[in-house]
Amino acid sequence: MKEVRIVFQPGEISVPVAAGTTIMEAMNRSGLGEDFPCGGRGKCGKCRVKVREGREDFTAIDEDHLTAQELAEGVRLACATKINRDMMIEIQSPKKLQHHILIDSAERPFHIHPHLVKVFAEIAQPSLSEHKSDWQRLQESLAGLGCSVHDLQAPLSVLRRLPDTLRESANRVTTVVYGSQVLGVEQGDTTGTLLGMAFDIGTTTIVGYLLDLNSGKELEVVSTLNPQAQYGGDVISRITFAGKEEKGLETLHQAVTGAMNKLIGEAVDKAGVNRNQLYGISVAANTTMHHLFLGITPRTIGMSPYVSAINQGLVVAPGELGLEINKAGRVFVLPNIAGFVGADTTAVLLAAELEKRDHVTLILDIGTNGEIVLGSKDRMVACSAAAGPAFEGAQITSGMRGADGAIDHISFDDGLSYTVIGNGRPIGICGSALLDGVAGFVELGMINKRGKFLEPEKLTHPGALKLKDRLIKYEETWAFQLVEAGQTRHGRPILITQNDIRELQLAKGAIAAGVRILQEAMGIVCDDIKEVLLAGAFGNYLNPHSACVIGLIPRELESRIKTIGNAAGNGAKIALLSAQEFSRAKDLAGGVSFVELGSYPGFNTIFAQNTYFKLD
Amino acid sequence: MKEVRIVFQPGEISVPVAAGTTIMEAMNRSGLGEDFPCGGRGKCGKCRVKVREGREDFTAIDEDHLTAQELAEGVRLACATKINRDMMIEIQSPKKLQHHILIDSAERPFHIHPHLVKVFAEIAQPSLSEHKSDWQRLQESLAGLGCSVHDLQAPLSVLRRLPDTLRESANRVTTVVYGSQVLGVEQGDTTGTLLGMAFDIGTTTIVGYLLDLNSGKELEVVSTLNPQAQYGGDVISRITFAGKEEKGLETLHQAVTGAMNKLIGEAVDKAGVNRNQLYGISVAANTTMHHLFLGITPRTIGMSPYVSAINQGLVVAPGELGLEINKAGRVFVLPNIAGFVGADTTAVLLAAELEKRDHVTLILDIGTNGEIVLGSKDRMVACSAAAGPAFEGAQITSGMRGADGAIDHISFDDGLSYTVIGNGRPIGICGSALLDGVAGFVELGMINKRGKFLEPEKLTHPGALKLKDRLIKYEETWAFQLVEAGQTRHGRPILITQNDIRELQLAKGAIAAGVRILQEAMGIVCDDIKEVLLAGAFGNYLNPHSACVIGLIPRELESRIKTIGNAAGNGAKIALLSAQEFSRAKDLAGGVSFVELGSYPGFNTIFAQNTYFKLD
Repeated sequence: MKEVRIVFQPGEISVPVAAGTTIMEAMNRSGLGEDFPCGGRGKCGKCRVKVREGREDFTAIDEDHLTAQELAEGVRLACATKINRDMMIEIQSPKKLQHHILIDSAERPFHIHPHLVKVFAEIAQPSLSEHKSDWQRLQESLAGLGCSVHDLQAPLSVLRRLPDTLRESANRVTTVVYGSQVLGVEQGDTTGTLLGMAFDIGTTTIVGYLLDLNSGKELEVVSTLNPQAQYGGDVISRITFAGKEEKGLETLHQAVTGAMNKLIGEAVDKAGVNRNQLYGISVAANTTMHHLFLGITPRTIGMSPYVSAINQGLVVAPGELGLEINKAGRVFVLPNIAGFVGADTTAVLLAAELEKRDHVTLILDIGTNGEIVLGSKDRMVACSAAAGPAFEGAQITSGMRGADGAIDHISFDDGLSYTVIGNGRPIGICGSALLDGVAGFVELGMINKRGKFLEPEKLTHPGALKLKDRLIKYEETWAFQLVEAGQTRHGRPILITQNDIRELQLAKGAIAAGVRILQEAMGIVCDDIKEVLLAGAFGNYLNPHSACVIGLIPRELESRIKTIGNAAGNGAKIALLSAQEFSRAKDLAGGVSFVELGSYPGFNTIFAQNTYFKLD
Repeated sequence: MKEVRIVFQPGEISVPVAAGTTIMEAMNRSGLGEDFPCGGRGKCGKCRVKVREGREDFTAIDEDHLTAQELAEGVRLACATKINRDMMIEIQSPKKLQHHILIDSAERPFHIHPHLVKVFAEIAQPSLSEHKSDWQRLQESLAGLGCSVHDLQAPLSVLRRLPDTLRESANRVTTVVYGSQVLGVEQGDTTGTLLGMAFDIGTTTIVGYLLDLNSGKELEVVSTLNPQAQYGGDVISRITFAGKEEKGLETLHQAVTGAMNKLIGEAVDKAGVNRNQLYGISVAANTTMHHLFLGITPRTIGMSPYVSAINQGLVVAPGELGLEINKAGRVFVLPNIAGFVGADTTAVLLAAELEKRDHVTLILDIGTNGEIVLGSKDRMVACSAAAGPAFEGAQITSGMRGADGAIDHISFDDGLSYTVIGNGRPIGICGSALLDGVAGFVELGMINKRGKFLEPEKLTHPGALKLKDRLIKYEETWAFQLVEAGQTRHGRPILITQNDIRELQLAKGAIAAGVRILQEAMGIVCDDIKEVLLAGAFGNYLNPHSACVIGLIPRELESRIKTIGNAAGNGAKIALLSAQEFSRAKDLAGGVSFVELGSYPGFNTIFAQNTYFKLD
């Protein structure tokens, strides 16, 4: 097989590859590629690179996504371009994107109740008159301290170390007890050290919280992009990758556990501790991330009737998952609710204590999939709405994630203005800005109820008239030019196109239909909903007014909206710090009735109605 | 490092080794060496080989054990001879010894109560209206069949295969349930197949019984020498090897599990089944074998106060021990009683049901260590007597194990006669023949009460006078020539020397002292013992009359002696076939009081008294 060399600029990173490898694969291998929203399927056109040397003819996929000028300048899609000779490539956004990840939280009070208990004891010396085994003397010492468990067990690995541990420590040892299991015996008194990490594994980002399990104190928060993103931006493309690629499941499993191990390393370094002091990990994740994390095929989640392999909460040894913490530790995986309503939603419910509320509350966790739960202590119903990637900026003409360079908010109040994440010139718009933009079009009468741009000469609102010149022809329809080419970082204009509005309509229509159907399932009307809680990153960044104007959330509820921060992360923390709460999560997940939207009678009509806008 | 070549004859087995390697090491590596009674410490002189080419000077160790003529002929000890140049070696007994292993048994009735249950079920199809996970549907199907376990759990490995297993089998699966654990899910109905293997791991031999766990039927019995013997013939030399040699523990652990895997292979081949159909293994072993099997250091057993690391009964996954059976299986390790009274004694007690007996019974399992248990349903006491290797033929001038070529019984009734295992010319004598020989000397007045040969001219018994010529001078004392040089397989005479009688006195003295001390501990006299049960290979081969004549067993009890076959093996079988009996074994082991002989007041005097013979 012919070997060729590819050099990435800036940075002059040089990588040998087999001829025929795509640029995307080479980027992944060299650690440069983390952000391929469509997973390399040639659908999103986001993986632009400029070929400086070794250029060849463009492909049909390049032609679909790039202008004639771009093609002439050597711009190509990394996923579509094969490396057949030595090449030099310029990466358009060479720095790994610095994502904004929600880490503030509104925690609720709860009691710490550790899963694992550490007990220090001086074990009796063996004697000729008593001839008790090491294990028996350890058990009796624990019983003497009130830690009396009938038929205490230990894994072989612990028993194998026991004789040396006792003798090397002069019989002064700390025993790590989990239920009826002795998971570890350590030299000396280590009871003061009991750390753990709570993880919220999202499709896009992974957040880890390093906690002191004795005090409950949060020591560090770390986060990273989910490296699975290089194999597909959404859960469906990852399910496809896991099923179709050789070792696809293993690759995705190791990608997420590898990222978790790195995060653990980062957190313990920052906190000045070491990973061997970690005895617990808790995990909240959507059902697909949950299965991939566990190394279980998510195949059945992706096809009708969309069932998961397992929903039950699990306790797993870290070694089984390749997680590098103390071997005496355990991994606590929160239960899923149903095929598309995962352990992340269980974590949100655990944090929000929905099952204890007297009044009916609507909880929305909006992402590529929107998880919606409606209910109170009497009854809870949930559904998952396939919003698609619009809220995350994917499949939007100038769309991008909520990262450095993204316009995140637009205001039409006092002439057009916008804010950019990280300041500086903008690169594109993220979901929250798309919401603001379209909400503005609705309020200024620039689109009709079907979402179609009015002809510029038909605009009547004074605010709209001021923006008239920004309406330009794009792909034979109208588009709104938010930023002109000269003002952007890459020299291309930032637009909101007719197609972008359609994408948003599909997304908001799915969520709104889900809310509507849950109301029907509960037999309640909008006014019965006393509170709306927005969880997750997008929910916390969006402008509630815009969400209500476009009909993502019923307008009547605008004054009842609250954001609750990264509730899934908070739920994971609570589950890690309290065995009782983790146990409660199991009951909680089982107590939620799941409504499958796709098979709900009249879903298509309800969905279509909700894609429309209500004009004043 | 210089490499040299050693060729073994017969067979022309050629092995490259580093210069300086001993012949014993080379034999071990080439699979030729299994029988080094002293473990290569130059103590027993049993590892004779003849150097045909590449001979060098003999060592001081050779000189201790070999005659001048042997040395001149090139006979050397394999353990003492280094290979410094290319060599050709003749092995004296090149065929692996075919040991006689007791496999007949007197089984008691008990109810089969499998540890693992197989349940066949048709699992419901997933549906859009129910959206239940694969795991939940499996649980519900099991519950529908009456197998309802609260909070049923499954290891990750089972969950990972579950989606494929269900779909590839059209939802017709067999679930392997152990307690609250689902250990396996198999395609189709496999409930008819549930096999297991009970192991009795002895210091010298390993016996395996292939059982049908559904019917209790014994399908095959297989046995092998314990390959650990190449690292030491007795438990003390193995404890030393495990502690002193690099990776010694691991080597011994893998030697025994490797042998077990081979035995499993042999048994399933014979029975026409496969190892994946085995779901259970039970293990009875003395404490040292128990620890080595589990990979736990036996170091503390070998030094005062002689405690084990663990006595408690254990259930272990086969993979943790490297045992190659179905991954859904489990290994059931019987509990030890104390440092030198192991799980093999527990198995004997389980088979003999000592704790249910109304009358006081003495159970003897005699080997290098003699395990002695005395008691009834009211109380049980046990001790371990360090008999030394005499009963196994080691450190006896013409001694050997009870293998092909061994004289196993001697009769003085009608002139001198003997029987040879495998017939043919004899090679040496095993323990049971040594007993007969010395018993004859006692009855014919050829030795005094201290065990010393009388001068030939002082013999008076007519039977003794006939044997007068067989008394020869050997190492400045008298010896009894049992077989003259011309009648043996190797051309050397077979003797019972003064030293051999001393060794036997130490051995029988230790056992008899143990019996005596247990009687004291119970506060009973000989006549209170209503039954004597002899367990194990030696106990079943020895002549009870000889044992009583030499005082190994009190003479008053001769008529009350019964042999109970390989009771340890029977106990292992019972524990494998019945979870209730395995559970009972735990209580049983805890209900036996251990008497440490070494620290018993007056032990030395009692021991010394019991080394004497009672003459008529």
